[in-house]
Amino acid sequence: MRRSFLVLLAIALTLPLGAQSAPAPESAAILAMMDQSVADWNRGDLDAFATCYKNSPEILFIGKTIRRGYAEMLAGYRKGYATREAMGTLSFAQLEVQPLDAGFATVTGRFHLERTAAGGGNADGYFLLVVEKTSTGWKIVRDDTTALPAPQSK
Amino acid sequence: MRRSFLVLLAIALTLPLGAQSAPAPESAAILAMMDQSVADWNRGDLDAFATCYKNSPEILFIGKTIRRGYAEMLAGYRKGYATREAMGTLSFAQLEVQPLDAGFATVTGRFHLERTAAGGGNADGYFLLVVEKTSTGWKIVRDDTTALPAPQSK
Repeated sequence: MRRSFLVLLAIALTLPLGAQSAPAPESAAILAMMDQSVADWNRGDLDAFATCYKNSPEILFIGKTIRRGYAEMLAGYRKGYATREAMGTLSFAQLEVQPLDAGFATVTGRFHLERTAAGGGNADGYFLLVVEKTSTGWKIVRDDTTALPAPQSK
Repeated sequence: MRRSFLVLLAIALTLPLGAQSAPAPESAAILAMMDQSVADWNRGDLDAFATCYKNSPEILFIGKTIRRGYAEMLAGYRKGYATREAMGTLSFAQLEVQPLDAGFATVTGRFHLERTAAGGGNADGYFLLVVEKTSTGWKIVRDDTTALPAPQSK
């Protein structure tokens, strides 16, 4: 009897808290995709970085304008980050995954780009991503990234 | 025979184009919600305007910072738009609804705020919204709104 209780307790402790929470493995898979994108960026590999986006003509990328589709998204990154120095070193903070349903979730957070003055200087901002569970893993289908005004020089 | 063909043609012309398109009534319902929010704003009724958002502690509103939940979203609007003059006259352009699945869609577009100099001057920007089909209609659950840098004075 006591042993059965302990087994049930052990099972209960491994269950996700809260009915609205995403299954932990999904959030972990989404965060792993984000981690991979940072690793690809910081290796200077824009082509690998871009694969965190869904290869679709329907994806949207919103910054100072609205870009549509994988090719335009990648061209925008290539133009904005033409050199290794301009890419700098990317990091994310305050990352939060919120499930919408079994197939979609949002990811919000802050980005920080550590760069030399020649590379464009440091940059910071916020983003909202919509990610979709595709046959090749979780992929970004909407990206609204907002750079904050540059701080006063140190 | 000819009459049957015409009937079939008439039916075909009323079908949505493209399998990936949302059912037209859903897009229309989402755009009607957006229209209503503009009408509420331009009547100076922030409480009515706020009902275009889902009344949930989980919604996120991203501008220069990340706000969470209906109450904080409304408080942010009240602080940022304390007077009728500060609210100005809102309009949207380039509105696009893209379905994610039956329960969720994204809305992207530009906003323009026509304001007197005393009200803060004109403002422009882009936004990405995630909207959810709730029991009380389509509601905004994520909002990433980015104001563009103010243009040079006219």
